Amino acid sequence: MQLPFSTLSWQGELPGALRLLDQTLLPAQEVYIDLVRLDDVVDAIQRLAVRGAPAIGCSAAYGLVVGVQDLVDDSTAAVRARLGTVAPALIAARPTAVNLEWAVRRVLARLDALPADASGRLLVETALAEARAIEAEDVEQCLAMGRHGAGLLPREGARLLTHCNAGALATAGIGTALAPMYTAHDQGVPLMVYADETRPLLQGARITSWELTRAGIPVTLITDGMSASVIGSGRVDAIFVGSDRVARNGDVCNKIGTYAVALAARAHGIPFYVVAPLSTFDPESRTGADIPIEERDPDEVRAGALGAVAPSGVAVYNPAFDVTPAELVTALVTERGVLERPNLERVEGLLREGGRIA
Amino acid sequence: MQLPFSTLSWQGELPGALRLLDQTLLPAQEVYIDLVRLDDVVDAIQRLAVRGAPAIGCSAAYGLVVGVQDLVDDSTAAVRARLGTVAPALIAARPTAVNLEWAVRRVLARLDALPADASGRLLVETALAEARAIEAEDVEQCLAMGRHGAGLLPREGARLLTHCNAGALATAGIGTALAPMYTAHDQGVPLMVYADETRPLLQGARITSWELTRAGIPVTLITDGMSASVIGSGRVDAIFVGSDRVARNGDVCNKIGTYAVALAARAHGIPFYVVAPLSTFDPESRTGADIPIEERDPDEVRAGALGAVAPSGVAVYNPAFDVTPAELVTALVTERGVLERPNLERVEGLLREGGRIA
Repeated sequence: MQLPFSTLSWQGELPGALRLLDQTLLPAQEVYIDLVRLDDVVDAIQRLAVRGAPAIGCSAAYGLVVGVQDLVDDSTAAVRARLGTVAPALIAARPTAVNLEWAVRRVLARLDALPADASGRLLVETALAEARAIEAEDVEQCLAMGRHGAGLLPREGARLLTHCNAGALATAGIGTALAPMYTAHDQGVPLMVYADETRPLLQGARITSWELTRAGIPVTLITDGMSASVIGSGRVDAIFVGSDRVARNGDVCNKIGTYAVALAARAHGIPFYVVAPLSTFDPESRTGADIPIEERDPDEVRAGALGAVAPSGVAVYNPAFDVTPAELVTALVTERGVLERPNLERVEGLLREGGRIA
Repeated sequence: MQLPFSTLSWQGELPGALRLLDQTLLPAQEVYIDLVRLDDVVDAIQRLAVRGAPAIGCSAAYGLVVGVQDLVDDSTAAVRARLGTVAPALIAARPTAVNLEWAVRRVLARLDALPADASGRLLVETALAEARAIEAEDVEQCLAMGRHGAGLLPREGARLLTHCNAGALATAGIGTALAPMYTAHDQGVPLMVYADETRPLLQGARITSWELTRAGIPVTLITDGMSASVIGSGRVDAIFVGSDRVARNGDVCNKIGTYAVALAARAHGIPFYVVAPLSTFDPESRTGADIPIEERDPDEVRAGALGAVAPSGVAVYNPAFDVTPAELVTALVTERGVLERPNLERVEGLLREGGRIA
């Protein structure tokens, strides 16, 4: 499946460049930037030119290559010494994005496994190969989630609703929550999608509505407060959202506002699907209560990109995420298939099959 | 109870001026404007310098006086001729605000009841007296709703949540949904209030948080998507909202987003109170399904006061209101008292007592 834009890609061979779609300019402009300096990669991650945990992970893996590729004709020792500064700089770019550190450590582990007398060139080439592998796996997982999720949709068409952006712009592939939409659209299933705008940072308005429109899927933008009444008035056949962390019992942590959508779906008997790769599951969190909820800058609500909308001194509570209890989740869709009515036993079975727990 | 600001007031006697707090400048500036020309009153209503059905009604009544007060030494015929153009101009300012036409027609009816040989001065003075009466009744009704609503709160304090603005800035008095807060605060009951920002027009962020702060009541601003998780995490003891129209069976039409709050309140056993005067009840609407839902300009969601936040061409669904079914309403609070578990029979009993139906 070919989308008419590319979240991230490696340009050329060695030396090459990490090409990113600069998401800070969306929806006004579609601008691609080629990054050939480590500082620029770090900056791009920090200012959210690329966002979404899987996309950040892929970008950081390529960032390692960007950071050492000028040493391709140098010694192993020189490359390893440089990695000692490049890796921490990338990991520190956004310390809360779990995929970032995971991807960097995966590349480093691959290089550590090389023979001691490997050339500098082999190290750099191996780093590039591992970054490409991480990207390829992300692409494959998105396609698998798309297949499994699309199978939940009636062939005659469906009206869907999503919250925030768990789309192609959050991954190297076709996304998580939006993957079933791209897949079904590709199969000729008529779709229309309600996109919650997702305050405070408006990822739904700025990013989801842009990427679905670019892919030719009709999208209708609504404010977050509208979703309950849109669902209640019979306009929606199913909900698809992504997740930032799934607990062992199936509780789902996702962008703030997801829980309200899940309550409305339950009140009206509409299926509520959560789409996430196994890497998003956290065996250390037994329930949603174990998941720490990040509180972000109050100015995102008071003003942010929108200009001042509230008294400058007003108190603000700005949690970035909420937890939807497993009992409100119709099914979890992963790269391994559809897990209906998730609970502790079922999720543990899935994690065991997927090699995430013993 | 004296609030440190005044939504509207009549300044002087005859000739006088309608003084409005220009709400379009909130929260950045607190500016009062004195209106002495009909065009300026119409313009103030149209550009939302004054908003909220009761406040619009009072302003329109005073607008009639503004429109004829230069004829105070002229003939009855001259005053009546002028009213024939002034009244339609005011009614057309915002045709959907039901209180506007109601208030204008009430003043006209009072003038029609005067003897045919009444002087021009008597007509103008009577119009001013009737406008003052409308304002005084609004103030009294707000105080009564405040008393009844405050009686629902524990004396040791409460954490409340409200949506949109049904406050002093929507009435000539202390508001509807916020009246119980002002009353309880005045009684020394410690309160803290979560204010939903209320997209798209942000009345919660711009207006509710401003007026509660000015009155010394602690307020915490949240986005609309946060209210379900704020309620779910045990941070809220009760919800208070206003209404734009209450159906005969107790279904409540209010600003879009109210229904999601009601669902979250029910899911967590938190009382959901709707505060509205009997004039907001519509005997013609048997249930919420009979209430037409206004759809507003898509640009309010795409951009509006916030600058562009979505692709300029994206489809938008922008209903201004939603309907919360009576079964989710813990009680309706009116100037006549607290009506618990509203249904068709109980609401009709209330309307009969209040003289709204036979």
